Amino acid sequence: MNRARLDARLADLDTDGYLLDADQDDANQLYLSGFTGPDPFLTLYVDGEVHLLVSGLEYGRARSESAADTVERHADYDYDYGGREARLDMYAAFVRDKGAESVSMPPRAPVGTADALRERGIDVVVDGEDRLRDVRAVKTDDEIASIREAQRANEAAMRSAEALLAGADVAGESRAAADDIEPGTLLVDGESLTSERVAEEIEVTLLRHGCALDETIVAGGAQAADPHDRGSGPLRANEAIIVDIFPRSKATKYNADMTRTFCVGEPPAVLREWYDLTERALDAALDAVEPGATGSDVHAAACEVYEKAGEPTFRTDPETETGFIHSTGHGIGLAVHEDPRLASGGGELEPGHVITVEPGLYDPDVGGVRIEDLVVVTDDGYDNYTDYPIEFVV
Amino acid sequence: MNRARLDARLADLDTDGYLLDADQDDANQLYLSGFTGPDPFLTLYVDGEVHLLVSGLEYGRARSESAADTVERHADYDYDYGGREARLDMYAAFVRDKGAESVSMPPRAPVGTADALRERGIDVVVDGEDRLRDVRAVKTDDEIASIREAQRANEAAMRSAEALLAGADVAGESRAAADDIEPGTLLVDGESLTSERVAEEIEVTLLRHGCALDETIVAGGAQAADPHDRGSGPLRANEAIIVDIFPRSKATKYNADMTRTFCVGEPPAVLREWYDLTERALDAALDAVEPGATGSDVHAAACEVYEKAGEPTFRTDPETETGFIHSTGHGIGLAVHEDPRLASGGGELEPGHVITVEPGLYDPDVGGVRIEDLVVVTDDGYDNYTDYPIEFVV
Repeated sequence: MNRARLDARLADLDTDGYLLDADQDDANQLYLSGFTGPDPFLTLYVDGEVHLLVSGLEYGRARSESAADTVERHADYDYDYGGREARLDMYAAFVRDKGAESVSMPPRAPVGTADALRERGIDVVVDGEDRLRDVRAVKTDDEIASIREAQRANEAAMRSAEALLAGADVAGESRAAADDIEPGTLLVDGESLTSERVAEEIEVTLLRHGCALDETIVAGGAQAADPHDRGSGPLRANEAIIVDIFPRSKATKYNADMTRTFCVGEPPAVLREWYDLTERALDAALDAVEPGATGSDVHAAACEVYEKAGEPTFRTDPETETGFIHSTGHGIGLAVHEDPRLASGGGELEPGHVITVEPGLYDPDVGGVRIEDLVVVTDDGYDNYTDYPIEFVV
Repeated sequence: MNRARLDARLADLDTDGYLLDADQDDANQLYLSGFTGPDPFLTLYVDGEVHLLVSGLEYGRARSESAADTVERHADYDYDYGGREARLDMYAAFVRDKGAESVSMPPRAPVGTADALRERGIDVVVDGEDRLRDVRAVKTDDEIASIREAQRANEAAMRSAEALLAGADVAGESRAAADDIEPGTLLVDGESLTSERVAEEIEVTLLRHGCALDETIVAGGAQAADPHDRGSGPLRANEAIIVDIFPRSKATKYNADMTRTFCVGEPPAVLREWYDLTERALDAALDAVEPGATGSDVHAAACEVYEKAGEPTFRTDPETETGFIHSTGHGIGLAVHEDPRLASGGGELEPGHVITVEPGLYDPDVGGVRIEDLVVVTDDGYDNYTDYPIEFVV
């Protein structure tokens, strides 16, 4: 945690403290508390100190593992599973005990807690800027090392996926297929190679490298035209297959993110054109990455490449369902998607921002192409932390 | 989704509609929208209809995959990534468009959204009862089938863990160990068998069975005395090793949950006593499961077994850090922990509730023992959906 940046950003609060009520799935909570609690708990920042309130079940672990200055448990407030109102009374007592009569909470903090504290006379202000999110955006060297480590696992997983694709036979070509398998379908050991099978290979490889993951995208053909489609069913030759992997280190909880698009066999001319265009959009966007440039500038650089080639973007048509239909990238850290945003309205880049750059093109009639690298903003540009070739045909 | 129960429970709202602002990680959102969106989106229930507001990126998939009656996208409200205030303006316009001037939101809904709607003249009431959570608690036959399917994967994973433990050598006994391995350490292929290695075996097995997971507990010795310690480092003979697995089906998103405690070699007398006591507490708690009994009754049945044997519980000492230091169980479904609670204050059991029953004993000087089964409440008792032996020594 960047304690100096935290103290600086929270120093200008209009309230006595900053309060979180969340579990470890909330990146702000993980960052400020340094504690992996599976159930929601309170973290309160007051006068440069971090205080935790946890259940008796979490007390021992919170004392030994968390980054907090003090840890208290429900029993310290005589709370004995007495229901919702008693729990909220305890929360108010804890906040007051730590010297706060007013607190800021981030926009996604629970309204039930905020309203209950208000009813109990504590002033609760929504921190619309989400200061902790901003603090988290600039990474320390340790955080960057954790992201790089997850990215190494990611590259191993991508290699395992590419190897499966590259080693596949094609039904009706190199190998005769069973009657129920369509010509052009990819085959491994005589069975059709599915998105699920490739995803499983990715996930197992990640586990062997100490990473967990919620989801992976392995989407071919028309499925690849929907950027959030995870992909399912048999994969085919001569079509674009998007592989997007975003693993999380089990030890550090930091994420990595990378996308490659592969084609087994010969891609149609339009897909090859799209791939080259997307590689150019990636290069243009990366060229724009430097401190002082904005996320909006980087997004514009990618959009311009596509727009000059006649492809629609959200800038030229906000309702388009084909073309470049997402932002150019996002910060990454304890959350897969965090600040800064490389999109219209995205703010200024700073050294220590770790971001993905991921232009792409989509059309259900053609398929989808996306290429995504992970880079860190440096004092004079960026370092690309992605060590993986950009090659379409495997 | 149990639409009749949903309509019945939401019919008595004091507001025009019920609003969610969350991503797929929120079980209420997953339940009401039927949509797996990775970024937060709005779901609004008004007059028996479910309306979604998603980004352009999710629009196609939301239309084809969600359970909603209508789906709209940001562009329908001329929202073009215009920042936070513009986004909140869009939310208010969407709510009004669907005919709601007042909405209820669950306690953990984001305060930023609630306050912003209030500022825009929409009345927002916190649904302290969390009605959707209550609707979710009673499962349909399809939901029960999904949980059973995840539980089958869970049993396969537990078998893989047990096999690793049962097949281990013991350093200094059956097999000489390297100089840096302490006598009593479990060995596989001459290397010490760690919690991490067993967890990896569990996770890979689950992946092969279509399940994902966030975390697994494989904790031995003093680590097992902390119910939420995930465990790390070498495992040893003659101590209790808690294996607690809670996988989620990747296809259905429903969870299962099971715990067994194993001992390689001969357990000390106190651990064998604890194991027998915990098996009796499990039986007593299960005997108490029937419609009309409360979660509090079931918890009391487990506590009584322990208390009669002189073991502390939270009932006899709220500050105890040893003994039976958690609740007896919890509902399970789209969330690992949901209603009903088998704890002090836990409400009435109904047919269709799917619950875990998981008594345990803990003391850092002794270790930890927990046994957990997954059962469904039926019209006249319960069905135990756990098909796994209860045996301590492997």
